[in-house]
Amino acid sequence: MNKIYKPNRTDWNEILKRPTQTIDAIEDIVNDIFKEVKKDGDAILRKYTQQFDGVSLDDLLVSALEVEEARTLVSDNLKTAIRLAKSNIETFHKAQITDRVEIETTSGVLCWQEKRPIQKVGLYIPGGTAPLFSTILMLAIPANIAGCKEIVLCSPPDKEGKLNPAILYTAQLCGVSQIFKVGGIQAIAGMTFGTESIPQVYKIFGPGNQFVTVAKQIATKYGVAIDMPAGPSELLVVADDTADAAFVASDLLSQAEHGTDSQVILVSTSEKMIDAVELEVEKQIKDLPRKKIARKAIENSKLIYVEDDGTAIDLINVYGPEHYIICSKNEDFYIDNTFNAGSVFIGNYTPESAGDYASGTNHTLPTNGYAKQYSGVNLDSFMKSMTFQKITEKGIEKIGNAIEVMAEAEGLQAHKNAITLRLNSLK
Amino acid sequence: MNKIYKPNRTDWNEILKRPTQTIDAIEDIVNDIFKEVKKDGDAILRKYTQQFDGVSLDDLLVSALEVEEARTLVSDNLKTAIRLAKSNIETFHKAQITDRVEIETTSGVLCWQEKRPIQKVGLYIPGGTAPLFSTILMLAIPANIAGCKEIVLCSPPDKEGKLNPAILYTAQLCGVSQIFKVGGIQAIAGMTFGTESIPQVYKIFGPGNQFVTVAKQIATKYGVAIDMPAGPSELLVVADDTADAAFVASDLLSQAEHGTDSQVILVSTSEKMIDAVELEVEKQIKDLPRKKIARKAIENSKLIYVEDDGTAIDLINVYGPEHYIICSKNEDFYIDNTFNAGSVFIGNYTPESAGDYASGTNHTLPTNGYAKQYSGVNLDSFMKSMTFQKITEKGIEKIGNAIEVMAEAEGLQAHKNAITLRLNSLK
Repeated sequence: MNKIYKPNRTDWNEILKRPTQTIDAIEDIVNDIFKEVKKDGDAILRKYTQQFDGVSLDDLLVSALEVEEARTLVSDNLKTAIRLAKSNIETFHKAQITDRVEIETTSGVLCWQEKRPIQKVGLYIPGGTAPLFSTILMLAIPANIAGCKEIVLCSPPDKEGKLNPAILYTAQLCGVSQIFKVGGIQAIAGMTFGTESIPQVYKIFGPGNQFVTVAKQIATKYGVAIDMPAGPSELLVVADDTADAAFVASDLLSQAEHGTDSQVILVSTSEKMIDAVELEVEKQIKDLPRKKIARKAIENSKLIYVEDDGTAIDLINVYGPEHYIICSKNEDFYIDNTFNAGSVFIGNYTPESAGDYASGTNHTLPTNGYAKQYSGVNLDSFMKSMTFQKITEKGIEKIGNAIEVMAEAEGLQAHKNAITLRLNSLK
Repeated sequence: MNKIYKPNRTDWNEILKRPTQTIDAIEDIVNDIFKEVKKDGDAILRKYTQQFDGVSLDDLLVSALEVEEARTLVSDNLKTAIRLAKSNIETFHKAQITDRVEIETTSGVLCWQEKRPIQKVGLYIPGGTAPLFSTILMLAIPANIAGCKEIVLCSPPDKEGKLNPAILYTAQLCGVSQIFKVGGIQAIAGMTFGTESIPQVYKIFGPGNQFVTVAKQIATKYGVAIDMPAGPSELLVVADDTADAAFVASDLLSQAEHGTDSQVILVSTSEKMIDAVELEVEKQIKDLPRKKIARKAIENSKLIYVEDDGTAIDLINVYGPEHYIICSKNEDFYIDNTFNAGSVFIGNYTPESAGDYASGTNHTLPTNGYAKQYSGVNLDSFMKSMTFQKITEKGIEKIGNAIEVMAEAEGLQAHKNAITLRLNSLK
């Protein structure tokens, strides 16, 4: 682990640099597959499912029978856990429902703002070694609360042409409308254009490898919205002597096991804590099944000693961490002064994994410093705000002249006429 | 005008098609200028200001003296109008302030969501024939209410190296931090990377020609967020016999004068109304200063007769208009069943130009069908939502086991360990 003592502010950007991703090289591949899917639909989805997932499928849609079978394959223990998580996530996201905002800005000029659901959304769930059913909870639950009419899910099949039972069980539990056995670039392209089997959607959510990430970015060119741009997952812990070194180490490792490019940072005002965490990481890492991955991420991790909380908070705001644990006697100072972070975990008994699975907050969060300008996924991510106005005759008499003057000053005479005609009709 | 009677649903997509924009051709130019600005900063901004705006500038920053001078050049009449608009826009956007959402999802598991301002935002205001000071109201007012720390504005100078006084007056009135005399692709690149004079920002807002639009899209590749993708402005009016044909015509024309590619659509359940509006458009268009532009847009406009309100609403939701006027005896039916629209204007005395300037709603709205998945600019556009969680010892005992089970099922042992360590410490 890299220990850094009192770094100069001028060096912060260099120290906090994320690994650069080379997107340009992938773009051509993605563009080509998009063009193919747009033209030939399902046939192309099948072709790439054969090529990348090694299985030939007649039907891309998961059948009711398969879903039923999956239900019998998931252990009761896991079902109970998933249902508890669902309940908490539902509670938190239902609390985010907002009333319409309505106000008379001038007497006779009534304006209101309402949020309405995005009608068709697509969820992407990666395949591979870990079946990320928890991400289905994080996406399908708010989509349902928002009232999205069509919730489509795509995930790559295994070599037997199956999806993991936990994925099917969770998708069904959370009200996903249709589940498709297709992954990668071709899945994103399918939801972008629509094919014979996959419906076209208006917004695509969910994580993925660099191919999926670039595919989502390309999808925006074709008018589809995405949840947010994605980069490797990351955790920053700020800890003083009130923290528990073993707990902190376990949190850093839970981030590190995600991938070799995971970002792990400890900021501390205590040299003692830094040394203790370093020892604990060494101790705990040995028994991890994914220790090879974790070891690599830990090699690039940073333990940064700063002299005071003020310096720490400035550094944290420059970084803008996705996950952010605060274990400090001055926790309120950190809570109040953090402007850039995705999800914040406060105190010794609030590990990141709580938010990953079951506290109720969403785990789809801005990485790569995007916490500076992007929200994590929340209920509003599945809605859009619309505004309404209704003006009475009295109301237009009040604001009409101002509009005429401004329209004229902007050289837009027809805009002015629309007012003048109405004002004249009231004379 | 193109009159279309009872079109088949299968033809709707064709009828409602927007003009396609060719972005690919511009992309190379934009990419090149971005690379130049990234490398050589202000020098490149000056080079292109000379080339495109025809003026050589030493200082890109507008001075306090220039702002002071502008104030004396704006008529009192216009100042009063701008201040009235500001008051209404402030009232409506302040009403959008939300409290933090806080809830205990499980006893001992406290979760909350808070919105915090994006620290640095950039506003782009186009130059050209019409000085769009109204757009400054729409962007700087909510940025200020949100609490953004730095609000940077870029707008191209005229051949004398000046900005329009109404732009400077409005920018100062609405609390813009710094105003720069730079426009086009180079302005967007400047705010994306930061230069010697222009600060780097986290999110860029505002309209522009196709070069600016593509530049904003390219900016997202470099980690900057944008308000939304943009296309030509558009208006859809739904009107029955309770509408006033002259008013409707004036609204269609106020949209048509924006540009030759403006989209103008009337949907009506009354053939009589369609004919009356057509006549009124011909009558009113003659006296418009921008009649050449309006004429071209009107030529491509569509007057669509449908047999009933149910058909009308389906067609409107397929289109997803940016601006949407409802003049119908069944206005509530349309209000309740419209899922895709930017800003809605209800009744005979609510012209689109009211929302463009002074009703209080925002005029930066999703075009090109993006109302299906994007919000118009609103207070939240200048903030991001962050989540927090604080779990007590009792709380982690309640949800810890579920997290362990789920982490294990996803193959993430270190995630499980972070819980197990804590649970063991409580035994």
